[in-house]
Amino acid sequence: MERIKCTIAYDGSGFAGFQVQPAHRTVQGVLEKALIKMHKGEPIRIQASGRTDTGVHALGQVIHFDTPLTIPERNWKQAINTLLPDDVRIMHVEKVHDNFHARYSVKQKEYHYMVLNREDPDVFRRDYVLHFPKSLDIEAIQAACKHLEGTHDFTTFSSAKSSVKGSKVRTLYHASCRKKENEIEFVFRGSGFLYNMVRIMVSALLDVGIGKRKPEDIPRLLAAKERGELGKTISPAGLYLWEVSYDEQEENESSISIE
Amino acid sequence: MERIKCTIAYDGSGFAGFQVQPAHRTVQGVLEKALIKMHKGEPIRIQASGRTDTGVHALGQVIHFDTPLTIPERNWKQAINTLLPDDVRIMHVEKVHDNFHARYSVKQKEYHYMVLNREDPDVFRRDYVLHFPKSLDIEAIQAACKHLEGTHDFTTFSSAKSSVKGSKVRTLYHASCRKKENEIEFVFRGSGFLYNMVRIMVSALLDVGIGKRKPEDIPRLLAAKERGELGKTISPAGLYLWEVSYDEQEENESSISIE
Repeated sequence: MERIKCTIAYDGSGFAGFQVQPAHRTVQGVLEKALIKMHKGEPIRIQASGRTDTGVHALGQVIHFDTPLTIPERNWKQAINTLLPDDVRIMHVEKVHDNFHARYSVKQKEYHYMVLNREDPDVFRRDYVLHFPKSLDIEAIQAACKHLEGTHDFTTFSSAKSSVKGSKVRTLYHASCRKKENEIEFVFRGSGFLYNMVRIMVSALLDVGIGKRKPEDIPRLLAAKERGELGKTISPAGLYLWEVSYDEQEENESSISIE
Repeated sequence: MERIKCTIAYDGSGFAGFQVQPAHRTVQGVLEKALIKMHKGEPIRIQASGRTDTGVHALGQVIHFDTPLTIPERNWKQAINTLLPDDVRIMHVEKVHDNFHARYSVKQKEYHYMVLNREDPDVFRRDYVLHFPKSLDIEAIQAACKHLEGTHDFTTFSSAKSSVKGSKVRTLYHASCRKKENEIEFVFRGSGFLYNMVRIMVSALLDVGIGKRKPEDIPRLLAAKERGELGKTISPAGLYLWEVSYDEQEENESSISIE
């Protein structure tokens, strides 16, 4: 058996999220269906770095699976892509040692959130950006981002629907916001993210941008550890799982060959 | 009665073209449905600068219609937009004199065609660009563009399916191609365009780009006036009706007020 690691991109707007669900079109569902075809009917289970919600996009989702097939590394990408619908693409394939795990070996994840900050919505990007017409104080947002960085209990910024029992402590290595013309891009890089955490953070940061909250409110919100303090979970349309990083040393050791 | 001129944008991927058709979702259909609602059931017929095909997009399509309503110019835009689905947007509204006609007063039209020139397709733009992975000689394409400019009989570059009887002579004021990273943008500005003309021109220009044809073949192709000489009509996904221009003098005279 060989372990295959794939980096994949998908347009989340046509999927009921990543995780397989009966009677729904999911990313895992179409990936496993393609792999079953390649394996002549034999079911292949994939493991992902984590789930994404309905409508959430990915440029750098990572999955792995084990296969009895002995296909050269460089041929895997096209072999799978020809069996996939055109809203999911394998971007990169690598053979890895079986101590690599797409979920348990994750070191960092990076999410981006895109906002179109102008009066008119863009008909071509209604599934790909959040349209936000109100004027925003980017400097205030950046100041608030700084308060989010670091190791905190992010309970306030997690969904009340979350079923995760364990610790809500996560480390956010990077949180930023930049504006270029009328495009606003939020970047978050962290050890891990709670359910809906990015969307709830962006919602709070936009509140800061319109003056409804102050940057200094962030430490108080974090300290409150009160789910529901920030109820609103904004649109998934602007959210992208951008990159998943694994321990470089470990990855180099575990990698049999690099394409 | 007042004559209203609207500039509209639409994502063509959800429409069976512009022109109204029974049992199909069309741009004209949804626009007229919104206007009928505004006019309490009274049917309002719109006139457009021209049709666009299934899957073709617009940033600057122009329509007009006549209305008994006396709504201030600045309120029209929002009034219509709130009744439209989110893949069509009114971008600008202007009251004009009744000698303005969206189709007959057209002076120039501009179309753009977008190509993604890289190995991997972009999952987010499969309806918005043509994915073309082969390497292209942009200078050769530009040289070919120069041969297209001018007043010619464009029969060779029109669809064999076209039902237009009259002259196939059109003036192309501008034809160009520029590459920025892996994005290629074709721009065509002309007095008018035959059915499928832009898509057939781009198809021929891409043939020049991969060396299948030479720039100097263009004059011979034009002279042939042979429909079917260039059979292939490429994807509508990359095609945008960018701007429709009207005689400025006439427009200023006919315009009651400018927003």
